[in-house]
Amino acid sequence: MELKLPEIPELSRQHRLAAQEQLDRKTKPVGSLGRLEELAVQLCAIQHKVPPDTARKRILVFAADHGITEEKVSAYPREVTAQMLANFAAGGAAINVLARLMGGELFVVDVGVAAEPVVGVKNRKVRWGTRNFAHEPAMTVEETLQALNVGIELAFEAAEDEVDILCLGEMGIGNTTAAAALLCLLTEAREEQVVGRGTGLTDAQLEHKRAIVARAVARHREWVKTPFEALCAVGGLEIAALVGSMIGAAASKIPVIVDGFIVTVAALVAYHLTPKARDALIFAHRSEELGHRYALELLEANPLLDLGMRLGEGSGAALASFLVEAAGRILREMATFAEAGVSEREEQDVT
Amino acid sequence: MELKLPEIPELSRQHRLAAQEQLDRKTKPVGSLGRLEELAVQLCAIQHKVPPDTARKRILVFAADHGITEEKVSAYPREVTAQMLANFAAGGAAINVLARLMGGELFVVDVGVAAEPVVGVKNRKVRWGTRNFAHEPAMTVEETLQALNVGIELAFEAAEDEVDILCLGEMGIGNTTAAAALLCLLTEAREEQVVGRGTGLTDAQLEHKRAIVARAVARHREWVKTPFEALCAVGGLEIAALVGSMIGAAASKIPVIVDGFIVTVAALVAYHLTPKARDALIFAHRSEELGHRYALELLEANPLLDLGMRLGEGSGAALASFLVEAAGRILREMATFAEAGVSEREEQDVT
Repeated sequence: MELKLPEIPELSRQHRLAAQEQLDRKTKPVGSLGRLEELAVQLCAIQHKVPPDTARKRILVFAADHGITEEKVSAYPREVTAQMLANFAAGGAAINVLARLMGGELFVVDVGVAAEPVVGVKNRKVRWGTRNFAHEPAMTVEETLQALNVGIELAFEAAEDEVDILCLGEMGIGNTTAAAALLCLLTEAREEQVVGRGTGLTDAQLEHKRAIVARAVARHREWVKTPFEALCAVGGLEIAALVGSMIGAAASKIPVIVDGFIVTVAALVAYHLTPKARDALIFAHRSEELGHRYALELLEANPLLDLGMRLGEGSGAALASFLVEAAGRILREMATFAEAGVSEREEQDVT
Repeated sequence: MELKLPEIPELSRQHRLAAQEQLDRKTKPVGSLGRLEELAVQLCAIQHKVPPDTARKRILVFAADHGITEEKVSAYPREVTAQMLANFAAGGAAINVLARLMGGELFVVDVGVAAEPVVGVKNRKVRWGTRNFAHEPAMTVEETLQALNVGIELAFEAAEDEVDILCLGEMGIGNTTAAAALLCLLTEAREEQVVGRGTGLTDAQLEHKRAIVARAVARHREWVKTPFEALCAVGGLEIAALVGSMIGAAASKIPVIVDGFIVTVAALVAYHLTPKARDALIFAHRSEELGHRYALELLEANPLLDLGMRLGEGSGAALASFLVEAAGRILREMATFAEAGVSEREEQDVT
């Protein structure tokens, strides 16, 4: 098995220009809808159509467990990953509430939870959790490729289903530790810049988590030479699937709404593997998790929302999907000055 | 006629505490939904119920014309106010698109447009536009009270209709000039801090607008002694109606989502008339109009969105209503740890 990524088309300059021209004829002062207008243009450039389609929205939540939880890096026990999958299946989690409100489909995908499959969750287990990267690589090359392919396949499935907007989220106790270690391996980041409190560590627990990450990163730096190897080294399976889904969506001209810290680190990996994957990404929010701001800056991302959230599950992406849909519908539904019989601005002599 | 304002109940401490207690048992790390959780608690405190109701949402857009447009302070001719009312009635404006997306009712209320009434718009005209406040007070005491009462009545009507959330917007060519003058009269603001480009003035036009506001404010400062008199002095009719609607909504325990610069200045007037009106307000966004940041700071408001918008019409409030509804539904619909059988956080020994 080797790394074979689908080809990603260029953003459409033609549709970008057509979208801007149409926006400027709508009954509003030019540019007065601010970032909503930028979003509308971006959607057209990604989808290669004007107006963009936004009606069918799907949330993919990739879930997996992490061997690094053996090192006591999370405030919650590892069992919570599987328990939350049951909660997703029953409709009781935050992302279920938001999916219903946005009118989006929620697909939860088990890429490697360390428990029996849950009914109502797509079972694409690669293995029962990663290995403990404090002692050995989290995933083999083969496992990493399998998890990447799960993501690519789910993006392609979305394209077949004519999904217009993809929101990405994750669930996995320990995955802020994996994401922070991955960020360190990919960049020059120091662990105190990117290792945060996750689901709510105390000061002492945070110090411990930082020490674990620092030691593991130092160990893996000795052999890791590529972004793909960094992903193998510290994981996780759901992060690899997220990377794959972004690349698959970009190849399919589907705009992707990126959630918080973990999904943003996955975006950075996708960018390193194939820079054009960055073009299809819309960044939902700035989360409270320490490393998120750092990862966003590396991607030159300016997220839509800043609400002090740090839940994951795709909750920020789901909230931002309202803004994305609003942007698309502005372009699709608003009347032009000519259609509405509204006078355009006049050149006034104020002297 | 005299100023008689309805009584506003206190925020409910009991419901606030009950809401917080319920939130903390939901299947998420405590506080991890950030401002969404604060919003949920605020809704309960305003509505005096847990969980809050958010299903029925109404947007009130108050519209009126301004005599000050004789001084060439806007990039668009005065006729655009009436033309946009026809556009609202036909469903082609930005606020129509957003109202449909949010599933909200849109009521456009003509409090004083200088043109024949438009079918599909509520006709509550007090007069055909205000007087030119460069030369005389914009409104008499009687007219100001009438416009305030239009707002109070529409808030009471919303309460009778069991509206859960009220979004406020406005339409009126020239109303950033009126709002900026009002802000100067109410505070120590200088015109260069609060007079902005409105729908898109050039540098020269902006200088002209500032000079007009500065002269008018200096003239009216000589007689204005109260916030109510400031409102009479520079208007406008839609601003007075917005003030009334906020006070009426607060009296009826209806949370109000405040849009941009003009609605925020109306909020400041409402606060000056009866400070408890502030308690029912949720601030939607930070707009690009220059004086908005200043007005928000006076109200110690931290808006939910910052998207570089400057359209008005209630567009920012409509967008923020998604976040408000999401907050309410999190509290209403999420499962607790006990219900979902999810383990709570553990005290780990990391030594």
